[in-house]
Amino acid sequence: MGTSFTLAEIAAWIDGKVRGPADTRIAGVAGIEEAKGDEITWLADTGYFAKLHDSRAGAVVAPADCGPTPMPAILCPRPSIAIITVFERFAPPVPAPSPGVHPTACVAESARLGKEVAVGPHAIVDEQAVIGDRTILDANVFVGAGTTIGADCRLWPGVVVRERCRLADRVVVHPNTTIGADGFGYEYVDGRHVKIPQIGTVEIEADVEIGAGCALDRAKFGVTRIGAGTKIDNLVQVAHNVRIGPGCVIVSQCGIAGSTRLGRGVVLGGKVGIADHVVLGDGVQVGACSCVSKNIPPGTQIFGIPGVEREQWARERAKLRRLPQMTEQLKDLSRRVDRLESAADD
Amino acid sequence: MGTSFTLAEIAAWIDGKVRGPADTRIAGVAGIEEAKGDEITWLADTGYFAKLHDSRAGAVVAPADCGPTPMPAILCPRPSIAIITVFERFAPPVPAPSPGVHPTACVAESARLGKEVAVGPHAIVDEQAVIGDRTILDANVFVGAGTTIGADCRLWPGVVVRERCRLADRVVVHPNTTIGADGFGYEYVDGRHVKIPQIGTVEIEADVEIGAGCALDRAKFGVTRIGAGTKIDNLVQVAHNVRIGPGCVIVSQCGIAGSTRLGRGVVLGGKVGIADHVVLGDGVQVGACSCVSKNIPPGTQIFGIPGVEREQWARERAKLRRLPQMTEQLKDLSRRVDRLESAADD
Amino acid sequence: MGTSFTLAEIAAWIDGKVRGPADTRIAGVAGIEEAKGDEITWLADTGYFAKLHDSRAGAVVAPADCGPTPMPAILCPRPSIAIITVFERFAPPVPAPSPGVHPTACVAESARLGKEVAVGPHAIVDEQAVIGDRTILDANVFVGAGTTIGADCRLWPGVVVRERCRLADRVVVHPNTTIGADGFGYEYVDGRHVKIPQIGTVEIEADVEIGAGCALDRAKFGVTRIGAGTKIDNLVQVAHNVRIGPGCVIVSQCGIAGSTRLGRGVVLGGKVGIADHVVLGDGVQVGACSCVSKNIPPGTQIFGIPGVEREQWARERAKLRRLPQMTEQLKDLSRRVDRLESAADD
Repeated sequence: MGTSFTLAEIAAWIDGKVRGPADTRIAGVAGIEEAKGDEITWLADTGYFAKLHDSRAGAVVAPADCGPTPMPAILCPRPSIAIITVFERFAPPVPAPSPGVHPTACVAESARLGKEVAVGPHAIVDEQAVIGDRTILDANVFVGAGTTIGADCRLWPGVVVRERCRLADRVVVHPNTTIGADGFGYEYVDGRHVKIPQIGTVEIEADVEIGAGCALDRAKFGVTRIGAGTKIDNLVQVAHNVRIGPGCVIVSQCGIAGSTRLGRGVVLGGKVGIADHVVLGDGVQVGACSCVSKNIPPGTQIFGIPGVEREQWARERAKLRRLPQMTEQLKDLSRRVDRLESAADD
Repeated sequence: MGTSFTLAEIAAWIDGKVRGPADTRIAGVAGIEEAKGDEITWLADTGYFAKLHDSRAGAVVAPADCGPTPMPAILCPRPSIAIITVFERFAPPVPAPSPGVHPTACVAESARLGKEVAVGPHAIVDEQAVIGDRTILDANVFVGAGTTIGADCRLWPGVVVRERCRLADRVVVHPNTTIGADGFGYEYVDGRHVKIPQIGTVEIEADVEIGAGCALDRAKFGVTRIGAGTKIDNLVQVAHNVRIGPGCVIVSQCGIAGSTRLGRGVVLGGKVGIADHVVLGDGVQVGACSCVSKNIPPGTQIFGIPGVEREQWARERAKLRRLPQMTEQLKDLSRRVDRLESAADD
Repeated sequence: MGTSFTLAEIAAWIDGKVRGPADTRIAGVAGIEEAKGDEITWLADTGYFAKLHDSRAGAVVAPADCGPTPMPAILCPRPSIAIITVFERFAPPVPAPSPGVHPTACVAESARLGKEVAVGPHAIVDEQAVIGDRTILDANVFVGAGTTIGADCRLWPGVVVRERCRLADRVVVHPNTTIGADGFGYEYVDGRHVKIPQIGTVEIEADVEIGAGCALDRAKFGVTRIGAGTKIDNLVQVAHNVRIGPGCVIVSQCGIAGSTRLGRGVVLGGKVGIADHVVLGDGVQVGACSCVSKNIPPGTQIFGIPGVEREQWARERAKLRRLPQMTEQLKDLSRRVDRLESAADD
């Protein structure tokens, strides 16, 4: 972050309009509370406007209709999108192994590498694997036999992708994640669990990102599929034969059991569990720490263990909070009935 | 899956009886809904019978007493067991490093390898380790000093087994799992947490399978033990000094805290948490997303947070669902008592 | 554990006083229930005194004021602290790669290694990384460009620390843990999730220990920070921009969402989830399997989903347990009001 830019230069990146001295120099980007005097911040929404007055930021990216700000501003229609470009410009370059095969890597003769592929130290590419153009396989990555990886992918150190899986273009997999391990399937026969061979594969569509330490199992037969543009956080479990639609967001430590299907744009909060063989419709949202054990219609918001619709959940919780009051009402009624009975006895 | 077999050939594998044209050619195996015209499926139980009429499967493995099926059938006493053999025959071969030590692997001179052991690229076998016949150590596997691994085991890429642990025969460990890391033990002394050395080990009995990304800690002293034939799914935590009996099934993302004991044939659903120092008797079953914090007698089914017996859990949930009704009853009673009191005052 | 020591020798290690034959030979240390005749055990507190009579231990470390014990004793003020020293003396040495760079390791020319650093087989130290004196990087460890690691650290096999992170002195990281992967941050733009560059880093202060299979994400900007002396168990998720104070204890499978702050000495039981952007004050304790979604004042104990103060949680649970009784009371009251109404009608 040794370089700096003027507000005029930054405004040009994001097609914004400078308000205040256009030659103000900016050396970095940070949040409203963290930004220092030579850094630029942004107003994600006008709710943060008051915080701007306590900010030490040297400049702010603000909505086009933003009122006076205590520091110079760049005005543009959607600051929280524009700031991504600013982040990218200020970000230190992300290191990567150089294109080519590192001398310590093991690439099978029958594997096919695209143009400018980088295979890092100690990485392994097994027989018949295919790696697309400009894809980066980092240190200690393992790509199994017959697996196909698209162009412009990045597999970070320690990622394991077993045999016969397919990753499309621009897929990112963070360290120590496992793709294509055997699904968890046994048949109980004569007092012991006999393994069912897991002969299927995993298919990851384009623009998917998968966090660190995840486990995405290969299908019993057919495929486990992750839809295009879906984003998966760290330590997530995806069981065999799960089908996740495009554009989903799966937050950390979720677990999705076997053969379950998620539609398009489903959002699972952190630590959510989804039972096996259920269907979550398009746009379903499940609150953090909830567990879902049945089919959920499209567009529904689910909360709780077991998960129910948001309104039902809110209603049940309200009733629960009224329990102490109900106890008091019962006591009071009981006393009044006592008195009525005594009076009647007289 | 380029090859195909006739129904007669498949029937011979599983000791079944063909009904329909015995020369029907089958090229694969799949579920009722997924199977294509050249694939065989199976009836796990007669509950699926109706689905058969929508299936495109070219044949079905069905119970001996099965009524007419819309496609040719192989009849046999237990289709869901027979189908395992069919799966195995159709499964593409699972790739493995060749027997011998890969030139990039590091095997200590004092380590002892059995017959036909395969040590994959970049794998490490430390001093005094012992590896049994035909065991496969995949790429990047680490086997610590003095650790003993039995015959016919498979450790998939990235598995770490630290020093002095013991794995018996036919143990399978999926990628990026850690066995024998230090247990989590500290003594709070004068304002800081002082580490208690974890000098014990881990013992994994025969025929255990452990999923990807798990952590099984070594004991503080003595052993952490996994009983014969137990199956553990992905991302499971087993703390120090835990003893898991034989034939258990531990589904993904479960956590078992220190010194807890599970009997024979215990089943934990996904995301279950078990507190430290408790005992779950033989055959206990815990529902997904439940947490158990006390001893559970053998054969009990447990649900909820905190976990209670299935009947109690069902009863409590039924009462909860009656809360809105109770509120109404209370209001009604209150009005009636009001009226009685007014009448008495007159 | 081939060697043995006399009680007199052991007493000298811990500044204790022998009661009984000082030449009793001890060959190991174990718990009250597990200890064999040639092993020493300890009384963590006097509540365990009764168990001593069923113990086969050859000797016991007991509080200075302890009554007669069935076996020879070493008396000292705090047995559960003294026993740590005994453990350390009896512990078999923990194997480690020898100081120096293993011939299969890849250390960048621009990296700087301190004195007696050990870089194990297949480990990777990228450009400009700095490794402190006596630090051990085990097999397959990856240290990214510009990352600084202090003195006397140990990174176990398969640990990945990405670029520009900082680990202070005496930090221990167990196998297959990832530090510094991208935080999970996207902006939803025109129907797709656009990645927000995660340009910050991770800072781990001195004496932190991190379990196996964890994921600690780098900050969006600024730092994700783990305070001095904090201990983190296995499979824990720490999201971007989280700040954890000093002396905390985070048990296995916890998840802490983005930008959340934990004060000093916070304790999270197993499987706890903490929402994003909340603050847990100093000394907060959260019970296992709880989920916290709001700020918690210092010193509070929290239980439940969603988490509430211990007293409120206990009260609500007590009311819940009284629900069947309330139902009965309602029925009884209803009958009595029926009777009163009938009488009034007469």
